[in-house]
Amino acid sequence: MSLSPGTTLRELRERKPLVHQITNYVVMNETANATLALGALPVMAHAPEEVEEMVGLASALVLNIGTLSEHWVEAMLIAGRAATERGIPVVLDPVGAGATAYRTDTARRILDEVHVTVLRGNAGEVATLVGADAEVRGVESITAGLEPAVVAREAGRQLGLVASVTGPVDHVSDGDHGFEVANGHPLLAAVTGTGCISSALTGCFLAALPEEPLEAAAEALAALGVAAEDAAAGAEGPGTFHARLYDALAALDPATLDGRAHITAA
Amino acid sequence: MSLSPGTTLRELRERKPLVHQITNYVVMNETANATLALGALPVMAHAPEEVEEMVGLASALVLNIGTLSEHWVEAMLIAGRAATERGIPVVLDPVGAGATAYRTDTARRILDEVHVTVLRGNAGEVATLVGADAEVRGVESITAGLEPAVVAREAGRQLGLVASVTGPVDHVSDGDHGFEVANGHPLLAAVTGTGCISSALTGCFLAALPEEPLEAAAEALAALGVAAEDAAAGAEGPGTFHARLYDALAALDPATLDGRAHITAA
Amino acid sequence: MSLSPGTTLRELRERKPLVHQITNYVVMNETANATLALGALPVMAHAPEEVEEMVGLASALVLNIGTLSEHWVEAMLIAGRAATERGIPVVLDPVGAGATAYRTDTARRILDEVHVTVLRGNAGEVATLVGADAEVRGVESITAGLEPAVVAREAGRQLGLVASVTGPVDHVSDGDHGFEVANGHPLLAAVTGTGCISSALTGCFLAALPEEPLEAAAEALAALGVAAEDAAAGAEGPGTFHARLYDALAALDPATLDGRAHITAA
Repeated sequence: MSLSPGTTLRELRERKPLVHQITNYVVMNETANATLALGALPVMAHAPEEVEEMVGLASALVLNIGTLSEHWVEAMLIAGRAATERGIPVVLDPVGAGATAYRTDTARRILDEVHVTVLRGNAGEVATLVGADAEVRGVESITAGLEPAVVAREAGRQLGLVASVTGPVDHVSDGDHGFEVANGHPLLAAVTGTGCISSALTGCFLAALPEEPLEAAAEALAALGVAAEDAAAGAEGPGTFHARLYDALAALDPATLDGRAHITAA
Repeated sequence: MSLSPGTTLRELRERKPLVHQITNYVVMNETANATLALGALPVMAHAPEEVEEMVGLASALVLNIGTLSEHWVEAMLIAGRAATERGIPVVLDPVGAGATAYRTDTARRILDEVHVTVLRGNAGEVATLVGADAEVRGVESITAGLEPAVVAREAGRQLGLVASVTGPVDHVSDGDHGFEVANGHPLLAAVTGTGCISSALTGCFLAALPEEPLEAAAEALAALGVAAEDAAAGAEGPGTFHARLYDALAALDPATLDGRAHITAA
Repeated sequence: MSLSPGTTLRELRERKPLVHQITNYVVMNETANATLALGALPVMAHAPEEVEEMVGLASALVLNIGTLSEHWVEAMLIAGRAATERGIPVVLDPVGAGATAYRTDTARRILDEVHVTVLRGNAGEVATLVGADAEVRGVESITAGLEPAVVAREAGRQLGLVASVTGPVDHVSDGDHGFEVANGHPLLAAVTGTGCISSALTGCFLAALPEEPLEAAAEALAALGVAAEDAAAGAEGPGTFHARLYDALAALDPATLDGRAHITAA
C-alpha cells in the first residue's frame, strides 16, 4: 500500500489518461478545465448513442447527478454498466441526494446497477445513501450531529466501496481502513462546483492508480487541497481564487506534493 | 417602506436562503457563483420529477428562458405554479423575448400561469411583453425611441408585478411607484450573463425581503452595480472584470452599501 | 483578395453582427464571451421551435457537436438548412469526430445536408472526415504521421469548403489556395474550449467578410493567436490566462493586428 500523491501525479501526467465525465450543466467547463490543468484529458459525452463507445476509450468514468433528467440518468446507467463490464473505475458524485427523492433514488439506482469504485459527496449526501437522517438543503449539507468520519466508514462498509466524504477535513474509507485529509481552504466553499471538481480529480487519480482506490481517492483530495492553498495566497475573493485554482493545479509539483499533503491514517 | 440594500444584504447573509434557479445553459455556473458570492445558496434543478419538491425547499425561484426547449418550459411551469401555490416569490427573466415567437410566447405563458413577482429584463424584452413595438436582436435590445422608465411603469401596471428594466440606468416600477438605480459600469455589458446575474441576485434579495418586492428589486440592482464598480477598478478588460465581480460581490460591505447605492424614487 | 485581419476586425466592431451558435454545454459561456469580447453579438438557441427564426436574424451560424444528443442534432440540421437557403455562412466544429461513430456520422450528416462554409477542427477530426486513418482520443487529436497542411488541403478539395485545421501552426485551405497561421501560445491547449472559441471567432470574421471565407478563416485564427500571445504575457497558468484571454480579445487593436499576424500563403 503506497501513499504518494506526488508519484501518482507524475504517473498521471506521463500517461494523460482520458477521463469520461457525465456531469451537470453547471460545472462542465470547470471540471474539464480542472482535469486538463492537473494533466489528464477530459471528455464530456452523454448521448445514449455514444456513451458506451466513449467509456471504452477512457481510463475512468465520473458520474455526477447535479442536474438530472431522464435521458441523462439513462446515459449514466449505460455508461456505468459498460465501465463495470470492462473494469473501468467509476466515481459517483450524488449531488443533492437527500434534497429530493429523485436525486436520492437515482443515486441509489446507480449504486445498485453500477460497480461504483468511489462515492464522493458531502456528509449529508453520503449519510442519506446509508440511511442516516441527514439534512440536505438544495445541494448543501447541514449535518449537525453527523460525524463525517463515521459516515465515511459506514458508507464504505455498507456499500462495499471507497467513500470519500469532503468537508473542512475530508474522510476517505473503505469500511476497514481510512484516511483523513486536512488540506484545503475555506474559499473552496465559496465557489460552486469545487465538490464536483474533487470528484473529477478523484477520477483522474483513479485512472492513474486503479488498483488502489482508497489511496487514489485520498491523494486526489490532498492534491486539490494543496492547490487550493496555493490559489488562496494572493486571491482577493472567490472569483480570482477560482481562476488561480487552475493555475495552481497546473503548477502542482510532484516533488513537493507528498511533503505538503496532510494525510493521516484514520 | 424601507429602502436599505445594506440591511437586506445583512439579513440575507444571516439566513442564507436557498434560491432555486431554472436558467439557461450559458450562465448556470455564473449565476450560481454570483448567488454564492453574495451570500445565498443556489440550487439548479430542472427535472419535472423534482422541481416541485425542490422549489418547496427554496425561498425564491428564478426562471430564465435564455436557452429554451420543450422540457425546460414544462419544468418552469411546474415549478412556477408550485411557487405560486406556496407564496414563494418568482423572478422571470424573459431572455430574448421579442427575438423569436417561441421566446415571446413562452414568456407570456409563464406570465399567465405563474404569479411572477419581478419581471427582470432589458427594455426591448419587457416592452415586447406589454405589446410595444421593440426590436430585439438575438438577446440584445435595440430600443431606439423607447423610454425605459415608461416601459417599466407600463409593464408594472399592465402585468401587475414589479418590472425591473436594466440598462445604463435601471428602472424598477410596480406601476404606481418606482425607483431609478444609477450604479454599475459599462464592462457589465461586455460580459455575457450579467443580466442573468441581476435576475439571480433579484431572487436573493426577494428571498430576504419577500414582503417588499419593489424595494428588493431595486436593492439587488444597486448591490450588483456597486460590486461592478469595485470590480472594474483594477480590471484590465471583460475577463478579469468577470473574475473580480465575484470577489466584489463577496466583499460587499452592508455598512457602506446604503451610502454607495444611487437609488432615487421615480 | 484582401488579407487584413485588422480591417475585418474594424468592420466587425462597427457592424456588431449577430452570430448564432448551437454549441456544446461545456463551452457555451466561453464562446459567448469570446464573441462579445471580440466585438460581435452571440446568441445561443437550440429549440427546433425557434432555430430557423433565430438564424434568420444572424450573419453567421456556428454548429459544434461537442456534446451531442438527438434533439440537438435535429436543431443543427434545421438551422443549418435554413442558413444554407438564405446564404448565411456556416462554421462546423466536428468535436470528437473519429472518437465515436455517433460523432463521425453526425459530422458527415451535417456536411451532407448543410452548405458548410468553414470546417474548423484539429487534424485528427478533419482527417477522419476525409477518410484518413486518424486517432482521436476523446476530443484530443493524436495525429502521428498526419501532415496537417495535407489534411487541410485534402479536406478543402474533397469537401468543397474551407478547411481550418488548428494546432501549434494552423492550416487553412480551400483545396487550391491556403494559408499558414503561426500565432498563438501553448497555454491555449491547457484551457478547454479554446478550439471551440476559434470556431466561434471564425463565425464572427465570416459574418464581417462573408465573400472571402478563406481569408476570414485565416484572419480569425490570427486574431485569436495574437490575443493568446497578449494573454499569456503576465498569466500565471491556465486559469489566469483564460480570464486574460477575454481582456486581450477586447483590447485587440485593428491598427496593429496586421503587423502582428503571422499569416503566410501556403
